[in-house]
Amino acid sequence: MIRYNNDLLKLISELAKTEKGIIEKNYAPDENIILQNEKLFYVYILKSGVVKCYITENNGKDFILEFLGEGEIIGELEILNKTTSLSNVVSITDLKVYKIPSSYFMEMLQKNWNFNELVLKVLATRLVQTASRASYQQNYPLEYSILKLVYLFSNQPLKLRKIDLAGYLGISTRSLNRTLLSLYNKNIIHPETMDLLVTPQAILQLLQSFDRG
Amino acid sequence: MIRYNNDLLKLISELAKTEKGIIEKNYAPDENIILQNEKLFYVYILKSGVVKCYITENNGKDFILEFLGEGEIIGELEILNKTTSLSNVVSITDLKVYKIPSSYFMEMLQKNWNFNELVLKVLATRLVQTASRASYQQNYPLEYSILKLVYLFSNQPLKLRKIDLAGYLGISTRSLNRTLLSLYNKNIIHPETMDLLVTPQAILQLLQSFDRG
Repeated sequence: MIRYNNDLLKLISELAKTEKGIIEKNYAPDENIILQNEKLFYVYILKSGVVKCYITENNGKDFILEFLGEGEIIGELEILNKTTSLSNVVSITDLKVYKIPSSYFMEMLQKNWNFNELVLKVLATRLVQTASRASYQQNYPLEYSILKLVYLFSNQPLKLRKIDLAGYLGISTRSLNRTLLSLYNKNIIHPETMDLLVTPQAILQLLQSFDRG
Repeated sequence: MIRYNNDLLKLISELAKTEKGIIEKNYAPDENIILQNEKLFYVYILKSGVVKCYITENNGKDFILEFLGEGEIIGELEILNKTTSLSNVVSITDLKVYKIPSSYFMEMLQKNWNFNELVLKVLATRLVQTASRASYQQNYPLEYSILKLVYLFSNQPLKLRKIDLAGYLGISTRSLNRTLLSLYNKNIIHPETMDLLVTPQAILQLLQSFDRG
């Protein structure tokens, strides 16, 4: 599921008109915007396009945190906490960003309540979603998580790739393929295109059936 | 691992001296402070004691989000997002809290930059820790997560109970016991008391050994 933040996009577009410190920058697909563990000097707000945020563990495995689209902010955690970057951030489409110096970001938080409230709400929303997801990924079988994600992505403009779905679930593509095949045998999901073979309504009912054991 | 926030405790203790709206309240162990999915009208900051925050899934399984101690805040996500409660919050020791009306909480965020910055930092810290934990719990074997948690808890005043460790990992106590027994056979952890049978230094080396495959 890709997140968007129209209110933040609107506000930063306005600020960028008069604030010389805010620079617009473009990226091609597959470019690194932020590298894990690096020191950050800027916060970025996406003007258009989509990025993928992922943690690479010391054992080489990736865990996708989220896909972010228009109006979403990156780098704010690190500037607030004065830490190095939690994750890698890479463009997965053509990308336009507002690049905001950390000092201006902190100044805006202090002076502009609208901006501050939007940042508080972004953090609160992401925390709820990250916690909820950790909970259901731990407490439900893999089939449930796959169905849920494919369902959530079914009305998104961006096609979900297998490698990203595996990274989002923290499993190997081999485990993913095994479960996709089992879902295909039940006529639910195409194992290659990951298109739904049933209605979204039917998927919702299937998801609920997991609670009845 | 229990989190604490001395800066926030200091600040709220000061504010409570003059602000009549802030009420002090006491709880015995095992009392509910917040129920999942309920509407909240207050934010709470812990004056002393420890609470457990956990999500109960529709299938009846629990997932422990965190243990919070002195100075930590609860209810802020829900007031910021105008949503019902993400999780249950229950006291696991005697507890004293500052109970803060939501309107005063929002007013303080807007008027008091020190308070606001502390709340921003709490949210950023929790987001980093929730995301990091989701990543390593997905990408490392159960033994790694158990060793890491027992290690983190080894210098805490509160004894970690098996049922809480299982809830934190999102696994059954049966799976936990199986892995604890395997760790006992390697002379690392006592399977009942969960005391370390080796030095914390040795645990750190063991954790690193998981990265060499």
